Amino acid sequence: MMIIMKSNATPQEVEHVIEHIKDAGLSVHLSQGVEATIIGAIGETHDLPTDQFEVLDGVEMVQRITQPYKLASRQFHPENSIFPLDGFTVGGEVISIIAGPCAVESRSQIIDTAYAIKEAGASALRGGVFKPRTSPYAFQGLGEEGLELLAEARDLTGLPIVVEIMSQVQIDLMLKYVDVLQVGARNMQNFNLLQVIGETQMPVLLKRGLSASIEELLMSAEYILAGGNNQVILCERGIRTFETTTRNTTDINAIPVLKNLTHLPVFLDPSHSTGHFDYVAAIARAAVAAGADGLIVEVHPDPVHALSDGRQSLKPEKFAAMVKQVGQIAEVMGHRLASVSPFPVHG
Amino acid sequence: MMIIMKSNATPQEVEHVIEHIKDAGLSVHLSQGVEATIIGAIGETHDLPTDQFEVLDGVEMVQRITQPYKLASRQFHPENSIFPLDGFTVGGEVISIIAGPCAVESRSQIIDTAYAIKEAGASALRGGVFKPRTSPYAFQGLGEEGLELLAEARDLTGLPIVVEIMSQVQIDLMLKYVDVLQVGARNMQNFNLLQVIGETQMPVLLKRGLSASIEELLMSAEYILAGGNNQVILCERGIRTFETTTRNTTDINAIPVLKNLTHLPVFLDPSHSTGHFDYVAAIARAAVAAGADGLIVEVHPDPVHALSDGRQSLKPEKFAAMVKQVGQIAEVMGHRLASVSPFPVHG
Amino acid sequence: MMIIMKSNATPQEVEHVIEHIKDAGLSVHLSQGVEATIIGAIGETHDLPTDQFEVLDGVEMVQRITQPYKLASRQFHPENSIFPLDGFTVGGEVISIIAGPCAVESRSQIIDTAYAIKEAGASALRGGVFKPRTSPYAFQGLGEEGLELLAEARDLTGLPIVVEIMSQVQIDLMLKYVDVLQVGARNMQNFNLLQVIGETQMPVLLKRGLSASIEELLMSAEYILAGGNNQVILCERGIRTFETTTRNTTDINAIPVLKNLTHLPVFLDPSHSTGHFDYVAAIARAAVAAGADGLIVEVHPDPVHALSDGRQSLKPEKFAAMVKQVGQIAEVMGHRLASVSPFPVHG
Amino acid sequence: MMIIMKSNATPQEVEHVIEHIKDAGLSVHLSQGVEATIIGAIGETHDLPTDQFEVLDGVEMVQRITQPYKLASRQFHPENSIFPLDGFTVGGEVISIIAGPCAVESRSQIIDTAYAIKEAGASALRGGVFKPRTSPYAFQGLGEEGLELLAEARDLTGLPIVVEIMSQVQIDLMLKYVDVLQVGARNMQNFNLLQVIGETQMPVLLKRGLSASIEELLMSAEYILAGGNNQVILCERGIRTFETTTRNTTDINAIPVLKNLTHLPVFLDPSHSTGHFDYVAAIARAAVAAGADGLIVEVHPDPVHALSDGRQSLKPEKFAAMVKQVGQIAEVMGHRLASVSPFPVHG
Repeated sequence: MMIIMKSNATPQEVEHVIEHIKDAGLSVHLSQGVEATIIGAIGETHDLPTDQFEVLDGVEMVQRITQPYKLASRQFHPENSIFPLDGFTVGGEVISIIAGPCAVESRSQIIDTAYAIKEAGASALRGGVFKPRTSPYAFQGLGEEGLELLAEARDLTGLPIVVEIMSQVQIDLMLKYVDVLQVGARNMQNFNLLQVIGETQMPVLLKRGLSASIEELLMSAEYILAGGNNQVILCERGIRTFETTTRNTTDINAIPVLKNLTHLPVFLDPSHSTGHFDYVAAIARAAVAAGADGLIVEVHPDPVHALSDGRQSLKPEKFAAMVKQVGQIAEVMGHRLASVSPFPVHG
Repeated sequence: MMIIMKSNATPQEVEHVIEHIKDAGLSVHLSQGVEATIIGAIGETHDLPTDQFEVLDGVEMVQRITQPYKLASRQFHPENSIFPLDGFTVGGEVISIIAGPCAVESRSQIIDTAYAIKEAGASALRGGVFKPRTSPYAFQGLGEEGLELLAEARDLTGLPIVVEIMSQVQIDLMLKYVDVLQVGARNMQNFNLLQVIGETQMPVLLKRGLSASIEELLMSAEYILAGGNNQVILCERGIRTFETTTRNTTDINAIPVLKNLTHLPVFLDPSHSTGHFDYVAAIARAAVAAGADGLIVEVHPDPVHALSDGRQSLKPEKFAAMVKQVGQIAEVMGHRLASVSPFPVHG
Repeated sequence: MMIIMKSNATPQEVEHVIEHIKDAGLSVHLSQGVEATIIGAIGETHDLPTDQFEVLDGVEMVQRITQPYKLASRQFHPENSIFPLDGFTVGGEVISIIAGPCAVESRSQIIDTAYAIKEAGASALRGGVFKPRTSPYAFQGLGEEGLELLAEARDLTGLPIVVEIMSQVQIDLMLKYVDVLQVGARNMQNFNLLQVIGETQMPVLLKRGLSASIEELLMSAEYILAGGNNQVILCERGIRTFETTTRNTTDINAIPVLKNLTHLPVFLDPSHSTGHFDYVAAIARAAVAAGADGLIVEVHPDPVHALSDGRQSLKPEKFAAMVKQVGQIAEVMGHRLASVSPFPVHG
Repeated sequence: MMIIMKSNATPQEVEHVIEHIKDAGLSVHLSQGVEATIIGAIGETHDLPTDQFEVLDGVEMVQRITQPYKLASRQFHPENSIFPLDGFTVGGEVISIIAGPCAVESRSQIIDTAYAIKEAGASALRGGVFKPRTSPYAFQGLGEEGLELLAEARDLTGLPIVVEIMSQVQIDLMLKYVDVLQVGARNMQNFNLLQVIGETQMPVLLKRGLSASIEELLMSAEYILAGGNNQVILCERGIRTFETTTRNTTDINAIPVLKNLTHLPVFLDPSHSTGHFDYVAAIARAAVAAGADGLIVEVHPDPVHALSDGRQSLKPEKFAAMVKQVGQIAEVMGHRLASVSPFPVHG
């Protein structure tokens, strides 16, 4: 961390800053130039807030040199993280596709979808059971009944299930049923929730917040990693900008940037990042071409009657076409689609 | 709600939309023009998601006519909401100022601050005890010990206390101690939390999310109001934009816009909305000049040693100067500062 | 255009709006519902500003049904626009790559670059001669001398040249030398410039402004088309958002959205949209996977000594590798790289 | 300027950076710490682009210490700039209000407005004659005829006139008629135009671009100052953000920030920054409470029939009420409204 002093800072002010650095257990590297005096704070600074120094008299600005996260960084862990899910592997040379409806609505809806997406080449089934809706008057999800339906779909198809957890009070219920936890964009900085997840060994798909910076996404991953859970998948799902033609703006730059900064697998959600089924396939292809490790896509057998997000859900046949295109792009990238396990044999 | 059909929509598609509207319990008003066919859906539509219609074949776009919130709207409740807190009243002609440190750090810190802000003219004391920090390595708050210290400060000064609740699991603890709940920006769409608060009769200061639209802020208020709790204060605290000179961009437009759209009291937090103590007083004055009903301001007796947000905290003497200026602006606006109750007599 | 009246609008106010519509030469379609009165204005409304109606007493809001642009819209011109440049064709099944330095700096720099990019598979050479620099103290370009060097590079390699025009006073100079005009992001709404270009028959690459909406980009294209010049290439080059890890945020959604809304060819500039050479190839691949018709990429033989934009310029060998990858993605999409003409034979 | 090397930078890479600094005529201050090697570049660096160093091998990042502008900075010129216009003074303790229609439409319109705003307390008359409209089909202004009408209005009322210049080709025409040039938001980085204005001695009101940072606004002012023209007024007019309830988001923070960074007078345009007449007065009061030196406000005698911007124009009587409120706020701030000269006596 470097503290840059104002050009008119007094020697006393410089001395005062130096004392503060020493109080924080760091060593000091003083550099007095003509243009400015710069004080380096040397040591373990990734856990030190910069504003402790910004408020000191005579300080012009504070510049962090090392990243504020550590366990998530590629510097700390140069190799890509690869980890097994039930039936397939995330990261590495494999492109994984998670698919399913926004919300579990009924037995036939989720089971039909599970069969259809498996047929098309998906690796896992998603489905929400607690829905964070902006309107208090909208459908809020089936709760545990939904989890039971998802578990049944898993039994029938062999697909692992991915479900959003909305609050730390749901953790035991979720652990009982799901294979991968999902943290939604609105909860990316629900630190209580992140801590509870960090204490499990359950893989987690962590979605970027609507207006979260890439650094903040990595800091949220750091919360989970710091708790001892290493199986974190990052997921870009579009950010909020001035452009309103699409629901969100897909930050496609985030894919190569994250692959550069972190060893964690990076997914993209083209359903939320565009908000419209017409654009999902194009952005899914772009994600894989940019280096993404996987996708999470909304699929619904009957979007017109979906209780939520119908506008951004693909019908199974359009999803199948998308998977095919994505597989071809993956090959150009030297990757391949996760191979799908056979249907389970019961009895 | 109006459904605008594509110029090449078929009669069958129009008929299909009409059926959907009737299925939703609404009546239909068909308007077939040269340029476009428009189908009005008449009835209680504020709880109806637009995307159910957007996915139908032949639909160009769906335009909501009525607002998606009801209880929060000025149409539904034309008069300003005014409600009593312990010792003062929020809304109406009174400007209320809540002040205190970002986090409760120690007995002397919070009690010194409480005396100082009361002296300066504040109406209530704020202080965080569970801190949502972006870094897992940063100070996370004193928890219940902090609540006890706040209660002691209230006993000594008579100031009601305002504390942020971060999770629905904290609700009982909070109800035991606090006078006003605060919902932070990151929790504005933590709908589980909003529902739990809606079931209490505790006044709540609801902060706008970093990238929440004004409409989304009102929808979150609607969650609380729909639960039966009418005492909601809205609080603008800066939004995230491309401008990085200040920590956030104060959306000062939100003040007159909210006063126009809703009957609820509207506050502004110039500490977070600027991120720097140098700019707090200017933006506090601007807020009141624009029509705000109150302010929430970070004050710390020793910002240099604050464990969080030191850079945006005012020293008590600067806060006192700010209160004086704000009082003068309030007078021009035909308002007045909340009168401060005398110190309590103990014994 | 639909004018939605306030629920408490008087019959006189409704009558007044109707008169206004008739004064504008439009016919009226009145729809009086329980929820709201809606007045349709039928006719040629794409050239009618909505705010003429928004200010009328009793009006709640005005909703445009038809797009405000016409010549640029796919409704008006359903087939893709394809037009020849000197030596290759833009649009259709061909992916074209324009490459070259930010600024022409010297004879050897531009000629070396021209040979290198042609060797690698580029279709055209770019190079700035008037540079819009944010600092008055920075290098401002070589002016006409730069144009002469570009013309020499064209003679030697056969590559058509693409040059940014910054002001309408440069039009005659540009027409004398260049094959494709480029309008930079900062000039996307320099309407005087757009009008002057509209009066020529010179192909133009129109870059999206830093904070321009997709609709505004199409409106700027409309200015050129309305003048009679049909050869407009649209170019996404990144928008300004809160994310600062990259220089800009590539709005990859804009590619499929524009392909849907307009018949004009759509390019992407991954150099500006990322701001860093490390990310250019990934975003170039993503663009073509999303459906772009071409790319414009900064290439410099010695980025370290570039007078501008060195950080986002590819070295020729990295550019060649990028072209190869892009070609493979193009094939998956059923497209192919523009075939490069042989080097001209002189003498 | 500080160049921070990667932790694994080689001694050769460090040496290479040092050579580059010396080549730029600067001296070097080397600081080799445990965490990082930092190389200071000492000397006149405000005119040196950082990207020359960012591309060198081994460089992690480059941090500017001094501001990239000089003449505009308060460090260079600590006292507030105050300069006379015809009939009043800008800057200092005086609050000036410029008012008038978006566009000059007719003789009676502009002359009626001029009388009305002078009566209400305005200091200068604005009116556009070349209109930068997003649609090629919209009203484009009266041109020189409009300038003649403005000059007549000045003769009759004594009010100096403020007119937007859209292109450097208009400079002679403008100098013949106007008292203050206005540079619109879309032209804030039209550097050719800024240079031409810098060569005159005409006061200029420079509007912030829709997505321009505060630093970029100051860089654009630097262009004019560097040409020798010191009479620059900065004007905040709203920035583009995700919030769409208002046309733009007033960046009220920019007022105290600019007053801190620069000696130039700072105005605010509440008409554009809100986009709706209902909010203009509230934001005008806020601006002055935050420390602005003046306002520019759209006033139209008949907004319903305005050819542009009717929705954000005040009627004269509402403008008069606004001026009164602003005057009261100014008094609290220790400022006063510019005193209005008597009407000229002709004859």
